[in-house]
Amino acid sequence: MQTPQYKENDLRLIEDEHSVTQIVQAAMAQTSSPRLRFVMGLLVQHLHDFLREVRPTDEEFEEALEFVAALGHATHATNNEVVLAADVLGLSTLVTVMNNNTTDGRTPGALLGPFYRANAPRYDCGDCVVQDDAPGLPLFVRGTVRATDGTPLSNALVEIWQASPVGLYDNQDPRQPDRNLRGCFQTDAEGGYHFRTVRPAGYPVPTNGPIGTLLDAQQRHPYRPAHIHFIVAAPGYRTLVTQVFVDEPQALESDVTFGVHRQLVGQLELVDQGRSPWGDQPAPFYTMDFDFTLEPGEQTFPKPPID
Amino acid sequence: MQTPQYKENDLRLIEDEHSVTQIVQAAMAQTSSPRLRFVMGLLVQHLHDFLREVRPTDEEFEEALEFVAALGHATHATNNEVVLAADVLGLSTLVTVMNNNTTDGRTPGALLGPFYRANAPRYDCGDCVVQDDAPGLPLFVRGTVRATDGTPLSNALVEIWQASPVGLYDNQDPRQPDRNLRGCFQTDAEGGYHFRTVRPAGYPVPTNGPIGTLLDAQQRHPYRPAHIHFIVAAPGYRTLVTQVFVDEPQALESDVTFGVHRQLVGQLELVDQGRSPWGDQPAPFYTMDFDFTLEPGEQTFPKPPID
Repeated sequence: MQTPQYKENDLRLIEDEHSVTQIVQAAMAQTSSPRLRFVMGLLVQHLHDFLREVRPTDEEFEEALEFVAALGHATHATNNEVVLAADVLGLSTLVTVMNNNTTDGRTPGALLGPFYRANAPRYDCGDCVVQDDAPGLPLFVRGTVRATDGTPLSNALVEIWQASPVGLYDNQDPRQPDRNLRGCFQTDAEGGYHFRTVRPAGYPVPTNGPIGTLLDAQQRHPYRPAHIHFIVAAPGYRTLVTQVFVDEPQALESDVTFGVHRQLVGQLELVDQGRSPWGDQPAPFYTMDFDFTLEPGEQTFPKPPID
Repeated sequence: MQTPQYKENDLRLIEDEHSVTQIVQAAMAQTSSPRLRFVMGLLVQHLHDFLREVRPTDEEFEEALEFVAALGHATHATNNEVVLAADVLGLSTLVTVMNNNTTDGRTPGALLGPFYRANAPRYDCGDCVVQDDAPGLPLFVRGTVRATDGTPLSNALVEIWQASPVGLYDNQDPRQPDRNLRGCFQTDAEGGYHFRTVRPAGYPVPTNGPIGTLLDAQQRHPYRPAHIHFIVAAPGYRTLVTQVFVDEPQALESDVTFGVHRQLVGQLELVDQGRSPWGDQPAPFYTMDFDFTLEPGEQTFPKPPID
């Protein structure tokens, strides 16, 4: 008795590691939705090529699947480990960069991030968003919002939020007043905005889940560089969601989420003599000038926040 | 005031969708473990290429991440949706085929699957593994276990388990006796084994989770072709974990988990006259001859089962 070979050789059956992919692709190709067919075909091609190049042992493959399950298990209302995985592999930034072509001169976008909260306090230009006596030097931020054709945009919305000098947002830190370091401003007749805040600090992404383990194994630190989040919006212009980073070279280059676009680095000037440009604050303090450029398009707002 | 361009141009910062990948790869390259460095470098390359080719909208990307989280959320003690995802994309089969090179003539391996249970009943050759009066025609299975050099292997273990004629394993079906359609046999002095069972039926993978939704969207049915699981083991030989499929061409070609290796198709002969080769069963019944070939190596056993 010999091991039988199935005789109907016209059937598409697996014979080796290359025929597997062909057979799977034939199944994917039957999908009626053109977009889903395209996406799944590419996904299968890349995942199969990846596995053929890596040649995982059975144990490594099992470990990888367990890692994916652990990402899901660590994802709940207050932590999204799957998004964090996409962040620390540069996937989120890549999608953001692809969807925010800046060849027309507009300011690059950046991730909204998990700390956005709706209903930020409304302030007048020049006001201070610091509601506590946190340590750290004051920071005076000012700039102009323009259209890509150079027109200054008056009455544009400038919404900001940031971490404190110890690297925590108000909704992570019971010691901060509610909605500390958050605020909405409107640009003046010349498109100008200005406000006072405090120099933000960088902070680590959550490290108590599987991504923390991965970062450890890769000898990567978990820190994001210090930044201020901005949403800039005006009727008739595509809403800009972005981040402006504090110019600390080492932190900029090693952002764990790879989010630092060269055009989003703000330059902080330390002023150690005299008084602030507004508000009569004695030195030392920082100033930062940062302008935004919006392209024509639809004014949208971010999705409702979780809290 | 112009939007500042960060002046320190020697810093590695993101400028466009290609520089993102370079910067991420530079971070991956710092990993000290050569294997992890290799795997993560390839993962980043394939995932970034995939995203650049797909060019997902922000909404599509968010949906994809939610899908991954849902796979994790649907994975628990009695359902592994992440493994199922790997199965229905052909990843599990690809890894199995890569790790079971058959150029030396050994029988191809196949997945252990989620329905294995330890402590199958021990039977003598010729015994029947059917413990209930399930409908369906009897199936008489016989074959020989040999080494790749042709030597018949006596006292080899042949363990089998299968779904019933309605497509359910005993541990899914309260109407079946415990350990119905499971059994362990030992080969005789000539390496032969034989047992009586019932023709198994195909069955669907779980469809109540995100993978069911995906299969629907791809217009794919969720069925596996009918098969019998085998573990064949002998001291001094690499343990073989495999599946032998019933020769139903349409079902074989459209296995939702792409698990049908051409060499694993068993040919069922319907006998409609006379009596069975052993056990004196009157026709009609099926017979199937299937031989196994083991390569020299380590005798291992599958991991402890979940139940």
